Amino acid sequence: MIRVLAFDADDTLWENEPLFREAEAAWAGVLRDYGTLESLSAALYAVESSNMAELGYGTKAFIISLLETAIQVSGGNLTAAQTSEIIRIGRRILQNPAVPLPGVEETLSSLHGRFRMVLLTKGDALEQRHKVERSGLARYFDLVDIVPQKTVREYFELCRRLDIGPDELLMVGNSFKSDIAPVLELGGAGIYIPFRVTWEHEKIEEYEHPRLRKAAEFKDIIDILADELP
Amino acid sequence: MIRVLAFDADDTLWENEPLFREAEAAWAGVLRDYGTLESLSAALYAVESSNMAELGYGTKAFIISLLETAIQVSGGNLTAAQTSEIIRIGRRILQNPAVPLPGVEETLSSLHGRFRMVLLTKGDALEQRHKVERSGLARYFDLVDIVPQKTVREYFELCRRLDIGPDELLMVGNSFKSDIAPVLELGGAGIYIPFRVTWEHEKIEEYEHPRLRKAAEFKDIIDILADELP
Repeated sequence: MIRVLAFDADDTLWENEPLFREAEAAWAGVLRDYGTLESLSAALYAVESSNMAELGYGTKAFIISLLETAIQVSGGNLTAAQTSEIIRIGRRILQNPAVPLPGVEETLSSLHGRFRMVLLTKGDALEQRHKVERSGLARYFDLVDIVPQKTVREYFELCRRLDIGPDELLMVGNSFKSDIAPVLELGGAGIYIPFRVTWEHEKIEEYEHPRLRKAAEFKDIIDILADELP
Repeated sequence: MIRVLAFDADDTLWENEPLFREAEAAWAGVLRDYGTLESLSAALYAVESSNMAELGYGTKAFIISLLETAIQVSGGNLTAAQTSEIIRIGRRILQNPAVPLPGVEETLSSLHGRFRMVLLTKGDALEQRHKVERSGLARYFDLVDIVPQKTVREYFELCRRLDIGPDELLMVGNSFKSDIAPVLELGGAGIYIPFRVTWEHEKIEEYEHPRLRKAAEFKDIIDILADELP
């Protein structure tokens, strides 16, 4: 019996990864003398990965990685104008309007009151909080929880905080790695809604599971909850 | 009747501001051609203040402000080597060992079990979490809560979460602005332990209050709790 619906935010409730992709392309444009989009992106991903433990997720960490990679690939030839432009490109992401994806608001509104609802997102707390505010979706959630990462441990803590068993939790999200796999492992259920782009860091092997459903669109979760996971 | 003790972390449980001061001095050294420590610090503070709403607190925000100020004061002459050095100077803060200040561990240990204890800190969530872990103090707290800022609203939320009235809360901290004033305003009690340095942003006019005590050292809170705020 599902009592709590938890929702991922970035690329589940609103677009996020596309803004990072655009910023990365603009950054690669600044550095066009030093490589292709592909080679520069590979260098960036290596720097981001090595920075992950210390800097975590979010735009501020991304900006620092953009700059460090730029210094590295330019062999120390980065100009102040380029540095400035890279910071500007990165900071633009912080203005993400967080417009709800199609069907999101209607679906949340329809589910509201029938389940306890939680928004569970990882990343920079301030940045995520700003997006929640801008989205206008805060009213549908009993709890907004921003965590540094989403592993079995964080879902366990969430269940403890809500005083429910893992079998009473259903998580909805676009990242198989962060939203689906740890919840299934803990004994909860998941609805996986793949988004059109996925960050390299969020990719893992996907699999079938009795407590897992896949949805093409956000609004499909209403039918899934009615028919398959009562 | 005090039931919950809440503790600020930076410059209350461990040193923090001195690391930012050292970084600022090192950064000003990189930019010595463009101003004095005093003039450069003033320029930095202006940039930090204007970035506050969007970037918030913490070292990653500080690094971005250091770079933006450096570009500005150098009139666009910042070299890649200087950019790189500034990032390095800023990132050093992230290695803050968070060694408990004198008397902290003994005092927390002695209070543990007699009150519910909360660590309440503002700033970058990942960075604060890392410091809590490094400090070895997590075991003394029933709850570690990292919030984007500490105003009346966050203390109200804390009381609600702990299911206590504001008059059952006592906050211990070094910032009159973030740790003391909002708690007194809400109806709680405070123990103010000034630290030897205070960030400009945290300065406000201080005042006397019946529910406020001032301590010279962390260990003094035991006597204050025993004698004056039973």
